[in-house]
Amino acid sequence: MQIRRHCGEDNENGKDNLSAIIYGINDLRLENRPIPSLKPNQVLLQMESVGICGSDVHYLTEGKIGPFVVTKPMVIGHEGSGTVVQIGENVRNLLVGDRVAIEPGVPCRLCAKCKEGRYHLCPHIFFCATPPDHGNLQRFYAHDSDFCFKLPKSMDSNEGAIVEPLACACRACRRGRVRIGSTILVLGCGPVGLMVLMAAKAMGAKKAVVLDNKEYRLVKAAELGADYTLDTSKLTEHEIVEYIIRSLCGKASISFECSGAELCVRVGMLATQMGGKFIIVGCGADEMKLPFMPAALSEIDMKGVFRYVNEYPTAIELIRTNKVKAKEIITHHFKIEESKEAFELAKTGNGNPIKIIIHPNPKWARMNC
Amino acid sequence: MQIRRHCGEDNENGKDNLSAIIYGINDLRLENRPIPSLKPNQVLLQMESVGICGSDVHYLTEGKIGPFVVTKPMVIGHEGSGTVVQIGENVRNLLVGDRVAIEPGVPCRLCAKCKEGRYHLCPHIFFCATPPDHGNLQRFYAHDSDFCFKLPKSMDSNEGAIVEPLACACRACRRGRVRIGSTILVLGCGPVGLMVLMAAKAMGAKKAVVLDNKEYRLVKAAELGADYTLDTSKLTEHEIVEYIIRSLCGKASISFECSGAELCVRVGMLATQMGGKFIIVGCGADEMKLPFMPAALSEIDMKGVFRYVNEYPTAIELIRTNKVKAKEIITHHFKIEESKEAFELAKTGNGNPIKIIIHPNPKWARMNC
Amino acid sequence: MQIRRHCGEDNENGKDNLSAIIYGINDLRLENRPIPSLKPNQVLLQMESVGICGSDVHYLTEGKIGPFVVTKPMVIGHEGSGTVVQIGENVRNLLVGDRVAIEPGVPCRLCAKCKEGRYHLCPHIFFCATPPDHGNLQRFYAHDSDFCFKLPKSMDSNEGAIVEPLACACRACRRGRVRIGSTILVLGCGPVGLMVLMAAKAMGAKKAVVLDNKEYRLVKAAELGADYTLDTSKLTEHEIVEYIIRSLCGKASISFECSGAELCVRVGMLATQMGGKFIIVGCGADEMKLPFMPAALSEIDMKGVFRYVNEYPTAIELIRTNKVKAKEIITHHFKIEESKEAFELAKTGNGNPIKIIIHPNPKWARMNC
Amino acid sequence: MQIRRHCGEDNENGKDNLSAIIYGINDLRLENRPIPSLKPNQVLLQMESVGICGSDVHYLTEGKIGPFVVTKPMVIGHEGSGTVVQIGENVRNLLVGDRVAIEPGVPCRLCAKCKEGRYHLCPHIFFCATPPDHGNLQRFYAHDSDFCFKLPKSMDSNEGAIVEPLACACRACRRGRVRIGSTILVLGCGPVGLMVLMAAKAMGAKKAVVLDNKEYRLVKAAELGADYTLDTSKLTEHEIVEYIIRSLCGKASISFECSGAELCVRVGMLATQMGGKFIIVGCGADEMKLPFMPAALSEIDMKGVFRYVNEYPTAIELIRTNKVKAKEIITHHFKIEESKEAFELAKTGNGNPIKIIIHPNPKWARMNC
Repeated sequence: MQIRRHCGEDNENGKDNLSAIIYGINDLRLENRPIPSLKPNQVLLQMESVGICGSDVHYLTEGKIGPFVVTKPMVIGHEGSGTVVQIGENVRNLLVGDRVAIEPGVPCRLCAKCKEGRYHLCPHIFFCATPPDHGNLQRFYAHDSDFCFKLPKSMDSNEGAIVEPLACACRACRRGRVRIGSTILVLGCGPVGLMVLMAAKAMGAKKAVVLDNKEYRLVKAAELGADYTLDTSKLTEHEIVEYIIRSLCGKASISFECSGAELCVRVGMLATQMGGKFIIVGCGADEMKLPFMPAALSEIDMKGVFRYVNEYPTAIELIRTNKVKAKEIITHHFKIEESKEAFELAKTGNGNPIKIIIHPNPKWARMNC
Repeated sequence: MQIRRHCGEDNENGKDNLSAIIYGINDLRLENRPIPSLKPNQVLLQMESVGICGSDVHYLTEGKIGPFVVTKPMVIGHEGSGTVVQIGENVRNLLVGDRVAIEPGVPCRLCAKCKEGRYHLCPHIFFCATPPDHGNLQRFYAHDSDFCFKLPKSMDSNEGAIVEPLACACRACRRGRVRIGSTILVLGCGPVGLMVLMAAKAMGAKKAVVLDNKEYRLVKAAELGADYTLDTSKLTEHEIVEYIIRSLCGKASISFECSGAELCVRVGMLATQMGGKFIIVGCGADEMKLPFMPAALSEIDMKGVFRYVNEYPTAIELIRTNKVKAKEIITHHFKIEESKEAFELAKTGNGNPIKIIIHPNPKWARMNC
Repeated sequence: MQIRRHCGEDNENGKDNLSAIIYGINDLRLENRPIPSLKPNQVLLQMESVGICGSDVHYLTEGKIGPFVVTKPMVIGHEGSGTVVQIGENVRNLLVGDRVAIEPGVPCRLCAKCKEGRYHLCPHIFFCATPPDHGNLQRFYAHDSDFCFKLPKSMDSNEGAIVEPLACACRACRRGRVRIGSTILVLGCGPVGLMVLMAAKAMGAKKAVVLDNKEYRLVKAAELGADYTLDTSKLTEHEIVEYIIRSLCGKASISFECSGAELCVRVGMLATQMGGKFIIVGCGADEMKLPFMPAALSEIDMKGVFRYVNEYPTAIELIRTNKVKAKEIITHHFKIEESKEAFELAKTGNGNPIKIIIHPNPKWARMNC
Repeated sequence: MQIRRHCGEDNENGKDNLSAIIYGINDLRLENRPIPSLKPNQVLLQMESVGICGSDVHYLTEGKIGPFVVTKPMVIGHEGSGTVVQIGENVRNLLVGDRVAIEPGVPCRLCAKCKEGRYHLCPHIFFCATPPDHGNLQRFYAHDSDFCFKLPKSMDSNEGAIVEPLACACRACRRGRVRIGSTILVLGCGPVGLMVLMAAKAMGAKKAVVLDNKEYRLVKAAELGADYTLDTSKLTEHEIVEYIIRSLCGKASISFECSGAELCVRVGMLATQMGGKFIIVGCGADEMKLPFMPAALSEIDMKGVFRYVNEYPTAIELIRTNKVKAKEIITHHFKIEESKEAFELAKTGNGNPIKIIIHPNPKWARMNC
């Protein structure tokens, strides 16, 4: 078999395609699925590292996110990296053996949004682990080659998996027009908040205030460049806003909501300066009570971030140059066979996880777990 | 006296400066104030037409808007036009006899916002009839000459007064990036909503849906270019959104909130397309319950409009070329001596007013009242 | 045969596919080629109107444009419209019987430029009648359906053919950021210059100066909205610049070079205001002697236009609303059988042609010729 | 006297205002001028460091630059920093004792360009050492306080003087939209080229090719971050372009012309990628023979840089954070009394000067010379 030849010593798993599949609420199963066959413009990837995202956990515990409902078994995972083990006949940008970060959305390439350079808004987009599309937490996975980005030699597969959340942070910074001298507010510092912090600093942010209600995350934020951190767990909204203004000598020029909490959305609206930007990266309740009019009258541009578009090269460059220390946010590693434990850790938060990585293939698992 | 010489036959009022002054809640008085003396870069204007804005009525009935509180007597009026009767020694852009539209905000010219071309966000800006700054509903008024825009011969002073709300609409269209082929939703069609409708059509909007809960306003909207109008007074939110989608064959590419009502803000968030723009022009309650997260996740850019910046030339050009039919929204004229009646009409809405104009000087009053 | 069924009375030509083919310099031949078969996302078009562009003439008379050389027989024509007579299995946006304007470039959809929304810069783009790609001056032509834009009922096929040069003009206006109140300079008023004039006026240009060295074109420009026209044939550069400045009371805020002549490029650099835009639409000699540094120091943004990107909907909307009077520039019609005569007219310019249309099928030819 | 009190030990020069004045071509004189009196919004500065710019040398050796002609004695110098020794009555942003970098242009604050946030294009701007406006190479100099930017404690006055050319580089980078991953070409690496190199790298440029015809400058460029340097002195245009393409694996995404040489302008046009940016910072001959059309057809945006606008805070931040190593380009220091020697060095280039600083007051001169 073609694949086996390229996998070398690590092809002990060349014969199976163990995959982590959501069957229903809190029903995660490991099953062997057929190794996918390739379309002419696809590559087959032996998956090495797949990060767990809040949305993955949400699908497992709730069975849906907004309009997206898991109605049939779905392979989970969309923060993945792997090694090319086979290429389709039309592929020109990759060779067998290349390690890549996988941009998990593949748009229709035909609609107005695709043509405008906003393919992330394509209504027909395929997206890993968004129902009904399968994800890539499996030993082998096929993907369009132009959405696989070759990693530089200096980057390993764990960093490759981090490219996905960092791409999201890069888009947030782009939407917020971070520049030399920006003063920023990061509301919530889970993995995405920490990424936003590092990306914004790399793009020139002068001062960063970071808020969260978990102490261990704030400690990490301080290590990664936050100039001011605040544990909001026992504070009123007013106290939080006051703290921000005192820290930055004024309101933030750009605020990033990375928690999904109503309190954080409110604080973002109240603590961003006139004519500033408020970028919503977190995902929260549909309905919220908000000081929206005062924010609008202050000409704060309020802009959401839905995934990313054309950000993978930027994210890779930030990690390559060590401007973003991707590995700093990885706290736990698991083999794919331990996926349930990994998701359990992500759910409970016991053990203070930040980013959890699952390794679908033995070689990389042995090196990390 | 210098002024008298230039006023010609209309200088019967050359000796007084009758002014409409808010002393407190529902306490509007007419008083003679001194004719202002000029700074070197100012012009003295004999006021001809001053429109009544919702904010003027609000100051009269509530005594405040947000943080701005009427704590001492304040001349009202900020939608004004007049004739130059005297010029300061440094004035180069105007001559005595020129008719002008008055941009009511004069910024500090020194701060970062002023230097960036966002002078409307200047924290030190003077703005007519925003406490504590006096407005221009008076016979004579002095203003910085570079914020007085000469009217073309074909435009009269009533059109000159309409330039102010139209400038606001132009900024809304600019913030929304209206272009050839845009499909727009206008939520509320008082004077500003009608202006937004006309300005957006002039800039190329293809289809416009206009909503309001007052039938007579919708009739006017239809006359002025609305492709679809909807009386929302007896409809549910869901029905309204459905109507919009059916009318435009999809959601709007750009929505304009021009009412300040929570329902309209909600509908704007629900009926704007992915990646679209939602521009907030109206001014409403500080706190609202809103479907904010779904709008953010749809990457709808939500942007408020606070006054205008560099829009007077555009607004004048739109009226000059008859692309915006400014006079169509003027329904009532009053002399300054009838200011109380004018405000009463604006307050009650009996008589279906859209835009009410007050004339501070006899000549122009005689021609219009 | 499938096609015949849909062509109705006009299918007398259902059996052949007469095509106009460049074999070499000044060697244009009419030949019957096979009716193309469809890919799943393509439509087969019965061509109705194909405009002759300067570049078509250039390929015929010179055999090349810049790096693009005609090395084997090539069907000419890229300004085309037609009727859908067959659809591929994956086509969802069109039905048999729809009339469409054809955007002649189909990009690779995979490269960075395509993903950024700049597909016109795709290095792998297929483009009608750019060697080695065949054009659409033939009875039947197959094209990707997402680059075929359905015409509104009110637009006929001649207007459909004009969409192509108008799209170019729309891109020029977009690159120049034409807005309400712009003062523009159009250097050269062949078909593209006239299109730029009309498009810019439709987008709000206040004043337009148009230059050319052919009187009949200037007459047309004046009919179509030019405020000032100037025959440059006997004037010095200095005189031309002076005329522009006098006409516009200053230099132009946006200048459009639509001739390719060195003199016009020079005048554009000299007669555009500080901080203005100079948009290069025409195509001229590789090397020119230019006052480039003074233009650069005046912060004039100098930007070329290479074809268009995402402009077809805008161009169609401008014609649909009659803001651009497309038919006004069509001066001559020919049957495909008369293609040599049509190109001869285009070459010599005798008879004062502006836009020449060739009709590949009998029905539409009968109606126009 | 007021000034004396604040100058402390350094006020030995409190009684004179020695100034470096251009009287004509190659006629530089040192003269005592009156200490300027202050307008209400001005500060009086005791000058500490003033850099010599190419334009200063040009005024001395040629008596003019373009339309600006030295027709009467003019104090030279515009790259200055100093200490506030007196403040006008309306000054709120500075205190006596503050050290500042001086933005040398003060616009009219009234014209359309000023209001648009493009005050650098103000036709009425005052600009240090642009005839007829006096510069700041003098012991004491008065300037509008809002164009004096307080230096952080960690920055000294020599770095303060470098803020001016760095602001120019920042504007170049802004015009070129440098971002994470840009590949850049810098044509000419005198002080401004080196600044552009460092600023672009700080903003995320991935690879930089730097060209010059002076070896010692290229050595400095390599020290300061150039990935590839090329001595162009014995190469053909074609060889230079080939070298760039080989180095960057393609053409540059952004090119910066920093020499004013025709060859460099040509190379910029030929070695910038399709859809890229070509930013012209250098100042050269009015007329040049250029491959302009191919560059335009490649949709390379060609944009000049005229001074800077709103860039001082960015430049200061880049030096404060050590992202730009300002002092690395300073090669020589002189007392104001040695101004002729300083200009002689700048003119001849013997001794390989990059940036020369002159110190108008004894204390700072003692520390540096």
